[in-house]
Amino acid sequence: MKIPEFSDVEAAEARIRPHIHRTPVMSSTFINELAGAQLFFKCENFQKAGAFKARGASNAVFGLSDDEAGRGVATHSSGNHGTCLSYAAGRRRIPCTVVMPHTAPQAKKDAVKGYGGRVVECEPSTSSREAVFAEVVAQTGAEFVHPYNDPRVIAGQATCAAELVSQVAELDAIVAPIGGGGMVSGSCLALSTLAPHVKIYAAEPEQADDAFRSFKAGHIIADDAPQTVADGLKVPLKDLTWHFVKNNVTDILTASEDEIVGAMKLIWKRMKLVMEPSSAVPLAAILKSPEVFAGKRVGVIVTGGNVDLDKLPWN
Amino acid sequence: MKIPEFSDVEAAEARIRPHIHRTPVMSSTFINELAGAQLFFKCENFQKAGAFKARGASNAVFGLSDDEAGRGVATHSSGNHGTCLSYAAGRRRIPCTVVMPHTAPQAKKDAVKGYGGRVVECEPSTSSREAVFAEVVAQTGAEFVHPYNDPRVIAGQATCAAELVSQVAELDAIVAPIGGGGMVSGSCLALSTLAPHVKIYAAEPEQADDAFRSFKAGHIIADDAPQTVADGLKVPLKDLTWHFVKNNVTDILTASEDEIVGAMKLIWKRMKLVMEPSSAVPLAAILKSPEVFAGKRVGVIVTGGNVDLDKLPWN
Repeated sequence: MKIPEFSDVEAAEARIRPHIHRTPVMSSTFINELAGAQLFFKCENFQKAGAFKARGASNAVFGLSDDEAGRGVATHSSGNHGTCLSYAAGRRRIPCTVVMPHTAPQAKKDAVKGYGGRVVECEPSTSSREAVFAEVVAQTGAEFVHPYNDPRVIAGQATCAAELVSQVAELDAIVAPIGGGGMVSGSCLALSTLAPHVKIYAAEPEQADDAFRSFKAGHIIADDAPQTVADGLKVPLKDLTWHFVKNNVTDILTASEDEIVGAMKLIWKRMKLVMEPSSAVPLAAILKSPEVFAGKRVGVIVTGGNVDLDKLPWN
Repeated sequence: MKIPEFSDVEAAEARIRPHIHRTPVMSSTFINELAGAQLFFKCENFQKAGAFKARGASNAVFGLSDDEAGRGVATHSSGNHGTCLSYAAGRRRIPCTVVMPHTAPQAKKDAVKGYGGRVVECEPSTSSREAVFAEVVAQTGAEFVHPYNDPRVIAGQATCAAELVSQVAELDAIVAPIGGGGMVSGSCLALSTLAPHVKIYAAEPEQADDAFRSFKAGHIIADDAPQTVADGLKVPLKDLTWHFVKNNVTDILTASEDEIVGAMKLIWKRMKLVMEPSSAVPLAAILKSPEVFAGKRVGVIVTGGNVDLDKLPWN
């Protein structure tokens, strides 16, 4: 296990700068009054390919030697990581293969293809995914870029929190959604050097609260196929992300499905931001635990904006 | 008829600065490639109260003497102007009355009340509206702030285009939706001094194309109750706005209902912006008339973001 260091974040910042947006930070008087705190939303929904994962994917892709790059990259993901890896590989003009179950939404397959990547379908089971993925790697020699348990990916995601603390002075805390823990780990990595006084909270759906239970238990607990509207947050922690969560996170807060959808609609209505259910979990948790944040200056990571406009969760 | 001058725009900028956002300008690589032009979206959906009309309303409200202000302001509007006038009046802590038909959406009434304004209901007819409005003014002595045919309002809206040309260098053209013509008139007023080489296009729904027909005919043509998804654009030109449209607009372009909804969904999907159907009319017109804008740098006014999330036009 290679734990990324702050120097890796600095290298990532320089490496990915031409390929990502420095996303804006937005706020809402109305939501601040509701929360009793000053919230600063870091809008990674405006990021390239629509999600913060463009940072980690770009860092992995552009850190490869020319030889490695020539064989391309591969991953398994039916979410934003697949799309973002395809985006980054497209920028470097190298092959990218994404393995996903044939049951994945057509929009996700189209998004990978839209950036020039190749989709290889498997059955919707772990064994099929692993077998198909092994075959892809054997055939192509492609470099595996894990969605979050990869030091290159974590160092890339870390550039988001680094940007945020350069954009907003004197934050007391940040809140980020937690699924596999890539964004949270990156935030821990960046802020433990840049702003060690900033408390880091993770926010998680009650219905997929494996990180919450892991944090309380002191070891990784992985759930099998939890169901939540926040579909980016179903995956479990792994050793690298657990390292950061265990050592640097102040607390993990949870919110119910209704609270998540309510917070999502509130942000759409008041802030005019199209963002994913996963991105609403931090606000849902803040509104549920106002005593934790009362009077504080709080950064909120809006992780992505890739949502199916034909299937909004309040319709 | 008092035609506002550029000095009124400068006065408006200073007057409203504490009360409005300097909104960001956003762009999309994908949409630029689709349009064959470089489009710069001026995001007034992020404006205070969710629409550019906060500019004109604030200019009118904060330009009143203390005596005038003490009697409050009034208007008739079931759209963003009513909400924005209530917002501005709330900032000055003066009364605001908005007359709207009892058939107006509850959300619009709630929005006015949310900023502290009073809603007075009338029947859904011009005669009832005028009678009820006259009664409100007689009772309160409130200052009437027309939604667009008012030099104070036009000078306020002009600050939007003024900001845009300070944010984006070397624009060739701007495109704004046209209903009553307040935003278009303000753009003409600002740019005829600040950037007279920038061509000004208005964009209008085919199903409410009274400005288009007025422009071709050389005199105002007003339609009775046109129907379009772009519900902010149903109102006719009036003498002040016609003055600017006639003298300063390069052309008026139209788009069909399907094209408007398609452009709206495209912006939501690709740019992650919640904006109104009216705000999508410029992009719909640009995509329909690519030859007009090929290779150009084009400012696009995203006029507002107040949309009913429970009734999206593609559902």
